[in-house]
Amino acid sequence: MLTKAETWLKNALDYEFNDVRLLELSLTHRSVAGDNNERLEFLGDAILDFVTSEVVFRAHPLAPEGDLSRLRSSLVKDTTLAEIAADLGLGEHLILGSGERKTGGHRRDSILADALEAIFGAVYLDAGFDAATKVIERAFGARLQNFPPADELRDAKTRLQEWLQARQMGLPSYELVEVTGQAHRQQFSVSCSVSGVELTTNGSGTTRRNAEQEAATIMLAHLAESDIE
Amino acid sequence: MLTKAETWLKNALDYEFNDVRLLELSLTHRSVAGDNNERLEFLGDAILDFVTSEVVFRAHPLAPEGDLSRLRSSLVKDTTLAEIAADLGLGEHLILGSGERKTGGHRRDSILADALEAIFGAVYLDAGFDAATKVIERAFGARLQNFPPADELRDAKTRLQEWLQARQMGLPSYELVEVTGQAHRQQFSVSCSVSGVELTTNGSGTTRRNAEQEAATIMLAHLAESDIE
Repeated sequence: MLTKAETWLKNALDYEFNDVRLLELSLTHRSVAGDNNERLEFLGDAILDFVTSEVVFRAHPLAPEGDLSRLRSSLVKDTTLAEIAADLGLGEHLILGSGERKTGGHRRDSILADALEAIFGAVYLDAGFDAATKVIERAFGARLQNFPPADELRDAKTRLQEWLQARQMGLPSYELVEVTGQAHRQQFSVSCSVSGVELTTNGSGTTRRNAEQEAATIMLAHLAESDIE
Repeated sequence: MLTKAETWLKNALDYEFNDVRLLELSLTHRSVAGDNNERLEFLGDAILDFVTSEVVFRAHPLAPEGDLSRLRSSLVKDTTLAEIAADLGLGEHLILGSGERKTGGHRRDSILADALEAIFGAVYLDAGFDAATKVIERAFGARLQNFPPADELRDAKTRLQEWLQARQMGLPSYELVEVTGQAHRQQFSVSCSVSGVELTTNGSGTTRRNAEQEAATIMLAHLAESDIE
């Protein structure tokens, strides 16, 4: 007879473990005394990186390496994995220490993401590479087909720079205009200018980087607009 | 007839490509106009991470995840890969732009490491996972069997903290004592103390982190010594 977790996994990902102890271990958080899923997560994380690398590599035959990296990151980041785990209903099968259980650990993103990776690692140990790949593909479903445009994953400063380079224009420069507010609550104001372009744009944010991103976004919007004309 | 690079690869790693263009591409640095090995490197890096993850996972059945990560890092870091590539004589088969060629690019660690990873990726595309695994195992040779003790891979601050925690002692604290020298040539001096321990140790270095590592190393040596007595 199947345990509750086995039945869940069969329904959710169409997989049955030969060695059910691997399933149990992959669901066991480190807040439980004794063995936990951290080693399996280590292995599963590496398999997942590899499988998603191949998917983005084949899906984007012309994309440069930087775009492939960004696409892969968007797939394997904790929030994506936690979303998948939550959709699958993994949370209620987690084995947590009493502290984690009381404070809602079965809903915590990092715990969900880690357990999902641990399951991938456990399937690999249980039945090999092809089985693990299939389980990963089932878990991700349409997420492996419908990518966001690689371009959108780039930050504004990078996009601005690439836009200018493609037109053999000068590089943007950012200057800190002002810092206001006390420590830990500072507000940065930054200007962005491009040699040969009259316009200067301004951005602000709680970090210098955020302020620069905003200034770059506005500069890019202005340039793209005047480019069309 | 085999090209020079094909003959080299057959001798060095006992592999013959079905599609020799993949070999050529994997040896082509981005300093050359047109296609280069960056996409193959992206894929090869992921395969290598996975294969080495499994090796350390199986070789150290009791090691915690942190030790596995450190062991894997020691295998896949650029300096290790460049060392392997140099041992194999990969450098003379690199296809470099003229600028890189003139400035000794065929000996540069990062270029050697990237090309080796690209070869792993190319073999995977050419003949699949098992073939890539075999080529990785041949390239690494004894390096996959003889690991440094996981303990040695931990940095001194981490080892000091673990040593103290194991004895339920207080945590170490680091204090910046002095910064001398002008920008870009600064020298940091840092002290390390542990509550309940009379001794204070000092370290110095060109970064604050290096100075802390030195102070931690000395503290650890003193504590370990007095522990034996």
